[in-house]
Amino acid sequence: MDSYLIQVKNGAGTRPSILDVRINGTGKGKVRKPHWAVRASEMSKKTFNPIRTIVDSMKVEANPKKPMISLSIGDPTVFGNLPTADEVTQAMKDALESGNYNGYAPSVGYQSCREAVAAYYSCPEAPLETQDVILASGCSQAIEMALAVLANPGQNILVPRPGFSLYKTLALSLGIEVKFYNLLPEKSWEIDLKQLESLVDEKTACLIVNNPSNTCGSVFSKGHLQKILAVASRQCIPILADEIYGDMVFSECKYEPIATLSTNVPILSCSGLAKRWLVPGWRMGWILVHDRRDIFGNEIRDGLVRLSQRILGPCAVVQGALRHILHRTPSEFYHNTLSFLKVWSPKEETWVGGETRPISCLGPTPVSGACPYELRELAASQLPQLERDPWATVSLGCAQLTSHPPRSFQCFEYPNFFRVVITVPEEMMMEACRRIQQFCEQHYQCGDGIQDLECDK
Amino acid sequence: MDSYLIQVKNGAGTRPSILDVRINGTGKGKVRKPHWAVRASEMSKKTFNPIRTIVDSMKVEANPKKPMISLSIGDPTVFGNLPTADEVTQAMKDALESGNYNGYAPSVGYQSCREAVAAYYSCPEAPLETQDVILASGCSQAIEMALAVLANPGQNILVPRPGFSLYKTLALSLGIEVKFYNLLPEKSWEIDLKQLESLVDEKTACLIVNNPSNTCGSVFSKGHLQKILAVASRQCIPILADEIYGDMVFSECKYEPIATLSTNVPILSCSGLAKRWLVPGWRMGWILVHDRRDIFGNEIRDGLVRLSQRILGPCAVVQGALRHILHRTPSEFYHNTLSFLKVWSPKEETWVGGETRPISCLGPTPVSGACPYELRELAASQLPQLERDPWATVSLGCAQLTSHPPRSFQCFEYPNFFRVVITVPEEMMMEACRRIQQFCEQHYQCGDGIQDLECDK
Repeated sequence: MDSYLIQVKNGAGTRPSILDVRINGTGKGKVRKPHWAVRASEMSKKTFNPIRTIVDSMKVEANPKKPMISLSIGDPTVFGNLPTADEVTQAMKDALESGNYNGYAPSVGYQSCREAVAAYYSCPEAPLETQDVILASGCSQAIEMALAVLANPGQNILVPRPGFSLYKTLALSLGIEVKFYNLLPEKSWEIDLKQLESLVDEKTACLIVNNPSNTCGSVFSKGHLQKILAVASRQCIPILADEIYGDMVFSECKYEPIATLSTNVPILSCSGLAKRWLVPGWRMGWILVHDRRDIFGNEIRDGLVRLSQRILGPCAVVQGALRHILHRTPSEFYHNTLSFLKVWSPKEETWVGGETRPISCLGPTPVSGACPYELRELAASQLPQLERDPWATVSLGCAQLTSHPPRSFQCFEYPNFFRVVITVPEEMMMEACRRIQQFCEQHYQCGDGIQDLECDK
Repeated sequence: MDSYLIQVKNGAGTRPSILDVRINGTGKGKVRKPHWAVRASEMSKKTFNPIRTIVDSMKVEANPKKPMISLSIGDPTVFGNLPTADEVTQAMKDALESGNYNGYAPSVGYQSCREAVAAYYSCPEAPLETQDVILASGCSQAIEMALAVLANPGQNILVPRPGFSLYKTLALSLGIEVKFYNLLPEKSWEIDLKQLESLVDEKTACLIVNNPSNTCGSVFSKGHLQKILAVASRQCIPILADEIYGDMVFSECKYEPIATLSTNVPILSCSGLAKRWLVPGWRMGWILVHDRRDIFGNEIRDGLVRLSQRILGPCAVVQGALRHILHRTPSEFYHNTLSFLKVWSPKEETWVGGETRPISCLGPTPVSGACPYELRELAASQLPQLERDPWATVSLGCAQLTSHPPRSFQCFEYPNFFRVVITVPEEMMMEACRRIQQFCEQHYQCGDGIQDLECDK
């Protein structure tokens, strides 16, 4: 070794003032000069989750007169008004006390749990068996594995706009391109099928269908789902269905699992305990493999099993509770959750239920929907400050009004709209409405030029 | 669109007998002919976890006279003889009953949990603060994130041989090359430092140091760790330390966290609750960031935060219990676990403690070690069946003897050795010893040619 040592000091307590340097001759004229240059990987740089970035890292100076009301994250538990069912907690306690769920489960989940999930979702139109279920650490990991098994770097996937940001986060992290298809507000957020089909090319690996929609709070009709399936069938594109909000719909809508409407399109349906059972922190998700024409074949199943072996599945205690959670949760629990959400279901020309006077700058409610979200249109052209300096508006929004609706602009690929979570307790929701109204009125510009106050009162 | 439709049947209950086909003219002479050809991704094909593949998928016809004794997986809980501490279970119950841990935690973990972990490991030689801790879904995900942030596809990492198979599983899954450095059985499984250093090149992204060693059950001395650090320092290679068996060492050894011995080498140390607290199924792991020379800087920390946002961290209930688990577990619990393992600690010329007569074909115990593993040398040259047909031997081993020692040959990159887990109850361990002895004697070939029986009795 052709080497010289500037300094070698190695041990606790002493700090070399310069770096250790050696030149390591390989004997082939190739010289490596070690120096410290540790860089984060491309993958880590490509990974960006806008919702979590906001929620995990936001530091807002509190306004002592106006405590924060967060309408930003789809976590029904944060305000304490929507606890899970006693039976769900009891099932966890039983699993814990048994002492049988401290060890490793198979990485795809215990056989008995997979069987319970298969039985829960199986129906004549879309039958499921134990081996059709892969458990995951939350619906996020379910989506991650489904994407990772279906698409290679350089391929593309079709993703709804507006839509849940995680699809893009995971795709870019894996080197997969994202192509956005449009949801149409004037058509209750149905898919623009023509535009969707125009995006398909040789490199399209899958179509993500999110129903009920996270962000829009909309539910596709049976007829619309059939048209989506027709596109997938024509173009031979498998579907990744994010159905985590399945069954969380108001009685006037009907949720149809997409797999029940097709015999030929292969579908990976992702779901979990998070939303319906109100325990998103427990990180229990699953993939249901629907493949009656054997198009996925063993290859996709094997691929999912392999991918599950990277981090070995969800918490075993939650797995131990899963069968009882699915079987013993009383139907009143689901009913009560929906009744609560129903209070905030949209009414024409009012905002989320509480206020009767229309709020300037907020568009009419575009959908008679379901699930714990609403997408609200904010007429940014009438709120010049939003266009000029969205980041300043964030602080304004955060400190004085709700937590950060304006910054949600960045999350859902849909300018001038913001997502509102409607699981907030009634009084806080009313207060949030009042604050947003005040904010809009303060910054509303009814014609040319800027008028900050009292414009539309 | 230039298209023809062979058949369109779409709807429940009808099965088209041929596939839907369309030719979609793009107007640029480029024609796409959709057909169903869904292939699993390269990533999923590259992902292979040999231990989980064996343990999750093995189907062995039971030998009614000889129930299976599994010595294959590092799960201390499977036999029920090593329950976790009551205080650990109680901490989980408390977290569950509080109802405060049903929602999403920050994806790097609750601030309070990160603080508790930092305080638990912090010491003057290697101080830690809250932001130096990233929680993960098990130590497996901790290692996955650490690898994913340090290395790009096409780079390489240095991995111990023999060693835990997950490093290779994750690296290949991420497109990272693996270079094996040797552990020397004749030197109590210390690293061959010269050979290690010879592997370093421009593309080396990190050095994995696993201490105490999963597979070998060995513990590096302070002096040896300092030499490893000297190599890393000279070559400017960051260290990924897998220290999940930290503190699980017998009193005659001393475990030194590698970060306490260096002030300049940046280290990501991975650990978790799995082994010391005997709850591997709870999937609670963490990364400790040691970077006193600011070589990782913000970039690696930010990268870890971003990567954590892909699947949003470990189960919140376990997080809720973490502080009490770390603080309230009585020292007798740790002591009792070690006392149990100590029974099986190696003795010269005997196998794991129980039998006093040397077993033919098993080499002498190569290390006076620690932690719940032993690596046993099996003289395959004297067991021709192993060399001729390892897969047939698997069945043989499985059905008649222990679960599947011969196939472990595939797992740890070290022919003629098999890993034995020593957390098995005493009577079963004795029986396992007897079976292995019987197996060896049946298949032992003392000279040329094959003599199947009674050779060395």
